Amino acid sequence: MSQTVTDIHQHVLSLAEGARRGARALAQTPTEAKNRALEDLAQRLTNSRELLQEANRKDLGAGRAKGLSAAMLDRLELTESVIQSMADGVLAIVGLPDPVGEVMAEWVRPNGITISKVRVPIGVILFIYESRPNVTVDAFALCMKSGNAVILRGGSEAFHSNQALLRLIRESLAACGLSEDGVQMVATTDRAAVGELLRRHEHIDLVIPRGGYELVRRVTEESQIPVVKHFEGVCHTYVDATADLEMAQEVCFNAKVQRPGVCNAMETMLVHEAVAEKFLPAIGQRLREAGVELRGCERTRAILADIKPATEEDWRTEYLDLILSIKVVDSLEEAIEHIENYGSHHSDAIVTLDEEAADRFAREVDSAAVFVNCSIRLHDGGVFGFGAEVGISTDRVHARGPMALPELTIYKYIVHGTGQLRE
Amino acid sequence: MSQTVTDIHQHVLSLAEGARRGARALAQTPTEAKNRALEDLAQRLTNSRELLQEANRKDLGAGRAKGLSAAMLDRLELTESVIQSMADGVLAIVGLPDPVGEVMAEWVRPNGITISKVRVPIGVILFIYESRPNVTVDAFALCMKSGNAVILRGGSEAFHSNQALLRLIRESLAACGLSEDGVQMVATTDRAAVGELLRRHEHIDLVIPRGGYELVRRVTEESQIPVVKHFEGVCHTYVDATADLEMAQEVCFNAKVQRPGVCNAMETMLVHEAVAEKFLPAIGQRLREAGVELRGCERTRAILADIKPATEEDWRTEYLDLILSIKVVDSLEEAIEHIENYGSHHSDAIVTLDEEAADRFAREVDSAAVFVNCSIRLHDGGVFGFGAEVGISTDRVHARGPMALPELTIYKYIVHGTGQLRE
Repeated sequence: MSQTVTDIHQHVLSLAEGARRGARALAQTPTEAKNRALEDLAQRLTNSRELLQEANRKDLGAGRAKGLSAAMLDRLELTESVIQSMADGVLAIVGLPDPVGEVMAEWVRPNGITISKVRVPIGVILFIYESRPNVTVDAFALCMKSGNAVILRGGSEAFHSNQALLRLIRESLAACGLSEDGVQMVATTDRAAVGELLRRHEHIDLVIPRGGYELVRRVTEESQIPVVKHFEGVCHTYVDATADLEMAQEVCFNAKVQRPGVCNAMETMLVHEAVAEKFLPAIGQRLREAGVELRGCERTRAILADIKPATEEDWRTEYLDLILSIKVVDSLEEAIEHIENYGSHHSDAIVTLDEEAADRFAREVDSAAVFVNCSIRLHDGGVFGFGAEVGISTDRVHARGPMALPELTIYKYIVHGTGQLRE
Repeated sequence: MSQTVTDIHQHVLSLAEGARRGARALAQTPTEAKNRALEDLAQRLTNSRELLQEANRKDLGAGRAKGLSAAMLDRLELTESVIQSMADGVLAIVGLPDPVGEVMAEWVRPNGITISKVRVPIGVILFIYESRPNVTVDAFALCMKSGNAVILRGGSEAFHSNQALLRLIRESLAACGLSEDGVQMVATTDRAAVGELLRRHEHIDLVIPRGGYELVRRVTEESQIPVVKHFEGVCHTYVDATADLEMAQEVCFNAKVQRPGVCNAMETMLVHEAVAEKFLPAIGQRLREAGVELRGCERTRAILADIKPATEEDWRTEYLDLILSIKVVDSLEEAIEHIENYGSHHSDAIVTLDEEAADRFAREVDSAAVFVNCSIRLHDGGVFGFGAEVGISTDRVHARGPMALPELTIYKYIVHGTGQLRE
């Protein structure tokens, strides 16, 4: 699994050059051929359960020996149902429209030239991710469908599982007459390989890190290649003075409890003072019954007497857990200020019957997605209708919010003329 | 002009924090207010010629003392006509539509939520550029109109000119009741300030370097913030077997001679062997009469006997000068291969009457803009109908080709519901 530094340099160079060749071929591959390879892969995944689980057992054994937590071992395990859902995920991508070749706009200029803006693949995408081996298949399938070559660098804990998945992917490509260059995997767990890759801007066009805060931060700091980040979510729901309080209770409960460990779960609830005394006891009780630890500002604690105080640190914290900070605010303005100062511009909601307040909130809260009278947990490529997604981008260039197939493309201009010159 | 390192850290922090405040205000500023400030600036530029030229004389004097070339001094000088064209440029931007607030798409999902994708400013843009002081006004006006705050870092040679222009910009903002936070300028020529800025990813959302190869390379390597690059152009025109040779001559001559010092000028001409003997003597004579030095492959030199041989290095070189390398190719495929191997994916053209060849060239040549039967010099935001442009992006994420006002924006999703939850 580990190699000398000289080898790593050569290994990375050969991956990167291979991916560049693969990208050229894939950009010209017709939709049907890409879909055939993906269908073949789905079948092969289902048929290769034994083989995958055998490789997976090596990783699980090593993980146990290293003392990985039960949660990590759980994420690492390729159960029958995880394998089936990988195969289903690949088939879902087959069903999505191919973004490549779409004419986004076309117009004629006064000098008679016709300009078309046409979607093309980005080129070579480096995917860096952590323990779940299913990301290997996911990332490959999304890149394949959008005509991009991909270099995969999974977590060291899933090394054998990922290599086994790579073999199946390559078998599918070969079976369908496509070049295997389009998918490359780092064959060492040495961190130095990542550093080398992040400097190869002549061969790699985009880096997508998918994992915890530290991984994303490190990649961003080291990379000389554009990065689309999928960072943390410090997300809010604001219950306005005119909110339908029954709706507010459902929306807040869903945002906190439905799946607390994800980036678009609610971490802070803001409540207008006009409804705090009525709203807080009911939602407080329901949340506590669901096992949520509540932490509140002074005014919250005057209503919910037995909860812990929320500190300055709480307002900035992504708990990813059954913990909620609560603040009573004087006004819509104070709610917006709080969100802009402490939030992470990911997903934020208002519950209100006042249209003017809703519009102002939607305009002034600068988040990837702003929700009016619904749960922030709806911030998702599937819910939005995009099919599969790479993740939710917290960046402000290229793609923001759910990153799906079109967000894995760029465009080129094709200009037709009859001899036009620059004057 | 220079400060201690401690001061630089503080200075950069205060610029960056100021710009972030400015961005929040600007994102909410109505189109009319932005246009009023720009109109005021255009007026103020025209009225302040004396003052600007006085500051400019300091830079010119220092430049002469430092031994700057005549070409550099020329780029640095604020003549009456340069000042007027700055003012005209600002007014042209007033006339362009405001991209902010545009609803790019809107749809309803099966669960009843309505999703709008709305254009918003990127936020804070760091502009790093070289000697021309007119970029100061240009960059400010484009960022202002698209609702972005801007941090300007111009070349040290133009320090006094840029400071004088900044004073006018701030006067216009103040006169129109807008916050001056939206425009910040680095007040030191110390390079350390750039390094500090390129690490402030929490305050700056995008870096646009505009200048020579070295500047762009250095910024790309150092930056922890997304960069949109405007890199070199090694651009081709391919004259196919079926080309209208009169059209080909006009298109090639224009591509090489109309303005040789820019990124979308032709550096290499490829000619199909079937027309080489007929085409090369005529275009060769015309180019030489215009002062162009020709360098050719073996087969070119068999036709144009008295020209220098082109080396491997020539095929990779952006001359930015009256020099042209010429290669005779066997086929369309060989032309495409040459362009993909040696070109910079900027602007490439084919001249042909064969529609199939044109389509294949347009599909397989992976350049920001591909031209059929017209000059690559048409690759320009103005010619394309975008109005003013920041430059031509050679990147493959966010924006490719001419980068105009919409390319200085991103989007957010606004979701309206009636209590919808995540199941």
